[in-house]
Amino acid sequence: MHKIDFPVSKARKYLEPGPVVLLSSQFEDHHDIMTLGWHTILEFSPSLVGCMIAGGNYSHELIRQSGQCVINVPSADLVDSVVAIGNCHGDRLDKFDAFKLTPEPATVVNAPLIKECFASFECQLYDDSMVNRYGLFIFEIVKAHVADKPEFPPTLHYTGEGRFTVMSNTLLDKHRDFKPEMLI
Amino acid sequence: MHKIDFPVSKARKYLEPGPVVLLSSQFEDHHDIMTLGWHTILEFSPSLVGCMIAGGNYSHELIRQSGQCVINVPSADLVDSVVAIGNCHGDRLDKFDAFKLTPEPATVVNAPLIKECFASFECQLYDDSMVNRYGLFIFEIVKAHVADKPEFPPTLHYTGEGRFTVMSNTLLDKHRDFKPEMLI
Repeated sequence: MHKIDFPVSKARKYLEPGPVVLLSSQFEDHHDIMTLGWHTILEFSPSLVGCMIAGGNYSHELIRQSGQCVINVPSADLVDSVVAIGNCHGDRLDKFDAFKLTPEPATVVNAPLIKECFASFECQLYDDSMVNRYGLFIFEIVKAHVADKPEFPPTLHYTGEGRFTVMSNTLLDKHRDFKPEMLI
Repeated sequence: MHKIDFPVSKARKYLEPGPVVLLSSQFEDHHDIMTLGWHTILEFSPSLVGCMIAGGNYSHELIRQSGQCVINVPSADLVDSVVAIGNCHGDRLDKFDAFKLTPEPATVVNAPLIKECFASFECQLYDDSMVNRYGLFIFEIVKAHVADKPEFPPTLHYTGEGRFTVMSNTLLDKHRDFKPEMLI
């Protein structure tokens, strides 16, 4: 995969459709990866995304301490890693080693990118006021790396009970029906 | 479509994959429908969902006043209505009439269900503390109506710039690889 810089204000292109993501985090010499499905874009500029990271996750603690993470988007061929990562705890093993994923240095944050994911969004904690009540971290996406092709890989979308749907390659282009100011 | 009652704690089955939804709302004799893509499940029980509804939308005002809405999930055959609804303003026309959608009475809330959508989730405003800062309404899903088949209709997923991807009918069942306590 050849990855290019991508405008952070357009991160919605990959996150708004609701894919399962792999969140990578690091604090001092501890790192973790977690599988996450509960996230939403909140703003274009600053580029804000809310992620619900429950308190029991090792990542929750690392992100509280470091104030940083990377949101990586896997395509469907990584489903077995996605499931395995979601079913083990990061204080007991090195998930990069265990699942043969490759950490790569990020540009702005200390948390590593996951090389095998087609998109990676470097995040800084922007607002922690909802963390105690809902586990909702609001991050600013400060740097984005996206594979230049294919434009829309088949992403994984979780439906509960161990089952995922997969995004098709059908693209409905309706831009002619949009008002110009809506085409952000 | 034959719709059945659905457990509210399992609303994630249809919302977590990130579909574009149609939000219907009512306050006194004013109603509206808006197209929405920025939402995330936040909790199973109570069944909580966060929706980013920007202040310029007529729905924003109706929901502030009524504290209620219905989240309706359209399948891809409704794409033209979804686009048209997202590109007009509800104080100027009746969107049910204009787009030939059928309002149906909800069970708990005053906002109408949209008959043509395969799933409808009746919502009560649960927490408005993030509305001023981010337009983020946290709702409790209090009643769910879902078509009994097909189990996973081809939902619409917005990617910006007037273009939608469509969910495939590929289902990856990985429940055997999950720890029992993770199979919520």
